[in-house]
Amino acid sequence: MNIIVFQSDWTYMEGAVASTYGVIKNVNPNIEIITATHDIPKFDIYSASYRLRQYVSFWPKGTIFVSVVDPGVGTKRKACIAKSEDGYYFVTPDNGTLTHINKEHPIIEVREIDEEKNRLASTKGVAIFHGRDLFGYCAAKLACGLISYEEVGEKYPVEEIIQFEIIEAKYEKDKVEGYIEIDDPNFGNLWTNIETEKALDIFNYGEDVLIELYKGEEIIYEGKTKFSKAFGDVEVGEVVLYNNELMKLALAIYQGSFLEKYKAGFGLEYKIIIRRNDYE
Amino acid sequence: MNIIVFQSDWTYMEGAVASTYGVIKNVNPNIEIITATHDIPKFDIYSASYRLRQYVSFWPKGTIFVSVVDPGVGTKRKACIAKSEDGYYFVTPDNGTLTHINKEHPIIEVREIDEEKNRLASTKGVAIFHGRDLFGYCAAKLACGLISYEEVGEKYPVEEIIQFEIIEAKYEKDKVEGYIEIDDPNFGNLWTNIETEKALDIFNYGEDVLIELYKGEEIIYEGKTKFSKAFGDVEVGEVVLYNNELMKLALAIYQGSFLEKYKAGFGLEYKIIIRRNDYE
Amino acid sequence: MNIIVFQSDWTYMEGAVASTYGVIKNVNPNIEIITATHDIPKFDIYSASYRLRQYVSFWPKGTIFVSVVDPGVGTKRKACIAKSEDGYYFVTPDNGTLTHINKEHPIIEVREIDEEKNRLASTKGVAIFHGRDLFGYCAAKLACGLISYEEVGEKYPVEEIIQFEIIEAKYEKDKVEGYIEIDDPNFGNLWTNIETEKALDIFNYGEDVLIELYKGEEIIYEGKTKFSKAFGDVEVGEVVLYNNELMKLALAIYQGSFLEKYKAGFGLEYKIIIRRNDYE
Repeated sequence: MNIIVFQSDWTYMEGAVASTYGVIKNVNPNIEIITATHDIPKFDIYSASYRLRQYVSFWPKGTIFVSVVDPGVGTKRKACIAKSEDGYYFVTPDNGTLTHINKEHPIIEVREIDEEKNRLASTKGVAIFHGRDLFGYCAAKLACGLISYEEVGEKYPVEEIIQFEIIEAKYEKDKVEGYIEIDDPNFGNLWTNIETEKALDIFNYGEDVLIELYKGEEIIYEGKTKFSKAFGDVEVGEVVLYNNELMKLALAIYQGSFLEKYKAGFGLEYKIIIRRNDYE
Repeated sequence: MNIIVFQSDWTYMEGAVASTYGVIKNVNPNIEIITATHDIPKFDIYSASYRLRQYVSFWPKGTIFVSVVDPGVGTKRKACIAKSEDGYYFVTPDNGTLTHINKEHPIIEVREIDEEKNRLASTKGVAIFHGRDLFGYCAAKLACGLISYEEVGEKYPVEEIIQFEIIEAKYEKDKVEGYIEIDDPNFGNLWTNIETEKALDIFNYGEDVLIELYKGEEIIYEGKTKFSKAFGDVEVGEVVLYNNELMKLALAIYQGSFLEKYKAGFGLEYKIIIRRNDYE
Repeated sequence: MNIIVFQSDWTYMEGAVASTYGVIKNVNPNIEIITATHDIPKFDIYSASYRLRQYVSFWPKGTIFVSVVDPGVGTKRKACIAKSEDGYYFVTPDNGTLTHINKEHPIIEVREIDEEKNRLASTKGVAIFHGRDLFGYCAAKLACGLISYEEVGEKYPVEEIIQFEIIEAKYEKDKVEGYIEIDDPNFGNLWTNIETEKALDIFNYGEDVLIELYKGEEIIYEGKTKFSKAFGDVEVGEVVLYNNELMKLALAIYQGSFLEKYKAGFGLEYKIIIRRNDYE
């Protein structure tokens, strides 16, 4: 019996989660459902993709991840179950949600869910809630072995999976240039696409570095900033460049919110340049 | 061992959920508790009633639903466990919470919880937290078979169950008149009491219809609107009349919030009239 | 297999919870994880401490509580597992989180988690996420018996545990003086440190009492107020002094928010004096 780990943009403000979890438990009450989050920002497929990448590696092989951020529900976007090389399953609309996962856990097979066979029959007039009627239901059948992965539906080429553009940071002798990949909306931190391992060839922990953060053409933060392993190495209220939980560089204000203070965000327009302090 | 599905208006901002779940697990650690939601709007018994109706049908028979939106705790309102014809249990203050359930899953028996026998003894001085001390505790005893349903307490007539007024929509040849039964506060959609099956005798999917939405006497939305099976059939930002997850008509702005844009709400004062486009 | 009950200030806005729960399930998929809350106010160690005290007593002996409100992560504060006289375990930064627990469930042993042996090896470059890499991981090993409590790490004196100051209320013949220990941020109630059992030697349920609530030197609420067992004994919108779920006195506005209306808060500066109505 595989665990189902569920994320969506539904919140708990109404009964969507409870009805979907009911569908799963009605397939087999022994399936364990873990809530990853239902607080993905509404319609934000990119964040859905990033969040999966943030936590999937920590789960046992065989875990079935269901992700439903699905503004295109009822249109022609595919409903799929993808399988990664390292043995995870992803049940999701094929709308970009698989982008980051495909990079870290390469997808080796993807199948379009057969609505005839693997949809909750009792709600067949409903077109707008695949989370409950298709993704939740089919994930449950897979989790408890009622269907095999092959019985999900027809295979299609993994090359056809919809993906967002992902850009690598540029590492030079005295500087690195990247962008803000995602935020931590709770603590107000910004996570870059710059890999700490590579940045450590340029800067050392404990050094001050020179940072420019852009929103488009405009500089929204510029400063000499400590590069540190942990927050507590700076004073409360100070900016710190640190190594985040995914081994990438990130920006924070210790016990404050960088995000709010500098009205920052994430995406390709939020370019960041970090230079050595002795850069000329 | 039956599953306990729990909803309340407590949020997770303090320890109410954790203490209640502890009480349940202390009765029997093998009881599985599923969080339906703790984000019912504060004191909103009507929403509590509607949310149950939204998800109960999807759960296995025998599931025990606990609903605690209980502004009258400590007063003379009854604390009860109701049993539906189709084999579900509802543990709740008898304050209107059973309204919608009773319509979809008729209650065939209701018992007042015996506080002498089925209340957590260690907190007997406390009068304001029946969720933890009475509903949670008694539900746990029922879930693991420590008491039978008959041992919950004395039966009382199901006719005495407190209920809100529910009104049916009026279906005519060229129009239908109903009201907004509930909202989807996350996506900002409005759910009417108009049954899609019956509306389909008047309009067809794909047609434009004429909508008037009232707040009391005032029209707050009026427009020629597409009647569609899914959101994605209109452009982002457009209003759509669609068939919701409960097979009723609903209003949305695709990837926007109808609720906010038109300052709408739910309840009997939010009347909606939908006419055929060729209506004269 | 002991249950893990988890609280933090992470929210569900990003993937912190999902990655940590993954770590636990990857140690042993049979460990049950119950979410106490992830909505502790950010960096608020005092609230973390209070919330534990609010719910721990209701759980089975042997339960492992993990609390991660950890602004000092990566600095020299200790990471520990404490054991209470009555058989509970607390996995937490030693930063004040154990204050209230130590009073109600005296800590008889505390061990510093050995990072060499009990830290997730795969993330060893990361210094800022002990919730996932140290607390979650080590709690899981303890929960499933992979390590004994003795194998957590070295003991240190329980007297060294970091604690906040806690002050007892002063009970006199005709009055009692205390302070607001904590709030209920959802319902907007204020919980004092005044024990109801002792207050009942001064006032009786049903009596009116005279209340002064201070913020520092300033009186923010003053009134003749009913002392009641439940909210419903006053009218909607009225202030009530009641016996809260922890058998302490508390202030509420029935179906309103005392917290918001009187711009109150909690902490030592929020002094409250309650006198008999016939006090001269």
